[in-house]
Amino acid sequence: METIFSEQHRLRDAKTEFFGGELIAPHEKPSRAEYVLERIKKRQLGPVSDPQDFGLDPIHTIHDAGFVNFLQTIWGEWTTAGFKGEAMPTALPVRRMAQTCPNFVEGKLGFYANSVETSLTQGTWQAAYASAQVALTGAARLQAGAPGVFSLCRPPGHHAFADSYGGFCFLNNAAIAAQSLLDQGAARVAILDVDFHHGNGTQDIFYNREDVLFVSLHGDPLETFPYFLGHADETGKGAGEGYNLNIPMPAGTPFRIWRDALRVGLEKVRNFGADALIISLGVDTFENDPISFFKLKSDDFLTMGGDIAKLGLPTQFVMEGGYDVDEIGVNAVNVLEGFEQVNA
Amino acid sequence: METIFSEQHRLRDAKTEFFGGELIAPHEKPSRAEYVLERIKKRQLGPVSDPQDFGLDPIHTIHDAGFVNFLQTIWGEWTTAGFKGEAMPTALPVRRMAQTCPNFVEGKLGFYANSVETSLTQGTWQAAYASAQVALTGAARLQAGAPGVFSLCRPPGHHAFADSYGGFCFLNNAAIAAQSLLDQGAARVAILDVDFHHGNGTQDIFYNREDVLFVSLHGDPLETFPYFLGHADETGKGAGEGYNLNIPMPAGTPFRIWRDALRVGLEKVRNFGADALIISLGVDTFENDPISFFKLKSDDFLTMGGDIAKLGLPTQFVMEGGYDVDEIGVNAVNVLEGFEQVNA
Ligand SMILES: [Zn+2]
Ligand SMILES: [Zn+2]
Repeated sequence: METIFSEQHRLRDAKTEFFGGELIAPHEKPSRAEYVLERIKKRQLGPVSDPQDFGLDPIHTIHDAGFVNFLQTIWGEWTTAGFKGEAMPTALPVRRMAQTCPNFVEGKLGFYANSVETSLTQGTWQAAYASAQVALTGAARLQAGAPGVFSLCRPPGHHAFADSYGGFCFLNNAAIAAQSLLDQGAARVAILDVDFHHGNGTQDIFYNREDVLFVSLHGDPLETFPYFLGHADETGKGAGEGYNLNIPMPAGTPFRIWRDALRVGLEKVRNFGADALIISLGVDTFENDPISFFKLKSDDFLTMGGDIAKLGLPTQFVMEGGYDVDEIGVNAVNVLEGFEQVNA
Repeated sequence: METIFSEQHRLRDAKTEFFGGELIAPHEKPSRAEYVLERIKKRQLGPVSDPQDFGLDPIHTIHDAGFVNFLQTIWGEWTTAGFKGEAMPTALPVRRMAQTCPNFVEGKLGFYANSVETSLTQGTWQAAYASAQVALTGAARLQAGAPGVFSLCRPPGHHAFADSYGGFCFLNNAAIAAQSLLDQGAARVAILDVDFHHGNGTQDIFYNREDVLFVSLHGDPLETFPYFLGHADETGKGAGEGYNLNIPMPAGTPFRIWRDALRVGLEKVRNFGADALIISLGVDTFENDPISFFKLKSDDFLTMGGDIAKLGLPTQFVMEGGYDVDEIGVNAVNVLEGFEQVNA
């Protein structure tokens, strides 16, 4: 399987994450992608290619223009205002507040944030832009006939909404790739999100649409981030009714139970009649992940890849989360190898 | 003028405030109240009395029961969960998210927060409870016939909503006092908020009601905290239409301009026919305040108090913000002395 990868990911190198009332070294760090890349080379998974540059247009098919402009300009405004830390908001427009974007940088941050652990820094936009191009290039490979491709995106994307960032995500790579496939002729695209966390941004982007099915397996949002989306009763709206499936699971869920949920999700994808499948590939379901509570073991990721392959759909894997850096490479590449073994 | 004051305010002694991407020593600290108290004694303003204890019932007339329970229990849950910093949220339920309160403490914090600079700490509930009793005791003095009274509340209250904390506020002292006056027989109560920041919590609490007029003079929310309420076009809703008046002003506003806005606000209160007036007394309009941008000088606070007194209404002053600690005592007591000079 070919991997698409950009060195530009290293430009996203934050010093701080807001966690547990402290500023800590970020869980989402450059070494994550490097470990995956190393493992790909060690296992001789296939060629590693640079992304093409598709420009801003495909990003604008998913994201609000004001939000994209905000990501491009916020670091300059923040430093000009004289703040000393990395850029993070204070006030956010929660219930019953006005949904008007302020002029001052601190207010803009709150307006465009959906959570506050994630700092904006010099280089974040460049890395997020490159990560979206990695996703777009993967989609182009599927379009050209590849049965499978791996977009080694970093920063991740599934917590980015059309108009907000958060959860270490800025641009929604999987959503941008899905829209690109549709714009190149696919009638239906399914996104299956196997990251430990609910793909709240992806769900919201396609919530009213019937041409993109979104299925997410994740920790119950009553118990874990992102907390405010991912419930089982969120099934889509309007034309999108029935095209959103959430399967939240409790702390301690082992692979045996998780795999049952995967079967349900894959069946939903099969019945949808997708032309292509995008996997939001987080491996923070791993038993030793530092911020998660499922109990998958490394071998389980091989099985997961095989189960996905049995659908027989052109499949783009898009890297999302996974924070146990030592094992993230093994687990992510196990999914890809499991897929290839069935597909071979 | 009598001052109501509780030593319990010292139990609110946070170590951290989240500001500019850093954790800093809080602007809202115990010395604020001590400076005001010292100045009251130095100027022999009048007796200083302990609050009576009115219990939880009057707090529940304003605040959501789940929120009050949250404030009482959150510190224990936070420490049990093993977090190391003071209690602060990560994800907040912003636009298009589910408005369901999570089970896990980090999610609860996000559900009940309207901003994230403010930590919850051991002792915060006790201090907030005492501060509400200071407000209630002041209201009882008005009810008993006092022409003026000063509730030296700390922590402050005007950024507390019925169901959320933020901006250094936990319980809305002014709103609790206003409701208490109504419940003891007043037909109409006006709240005039002269703090530099918009009283977003107070506005929201009474936004649909015609028995409480809310008037706020403040920094334009497009440019400063709380950012997402306080616009001039927010005039009330339903039965409350016409009973909310916001006068936002730009950076650099001097007292001459501010006083014109005060005249408009006082005229609104006069026409409303209030039985009693509550002043949300923040003195962060001061030219040297570290987090604000108006240009009032210490003498201007004397004039302000005199202007308010000319309304001739029973008036309860409730302490809100003001962060230039050296001058907060002088400026707050100047308002009270200006009031007394006219009222004498
Ligand atoms: Zn994740
Ligand atoms: Zn203030």
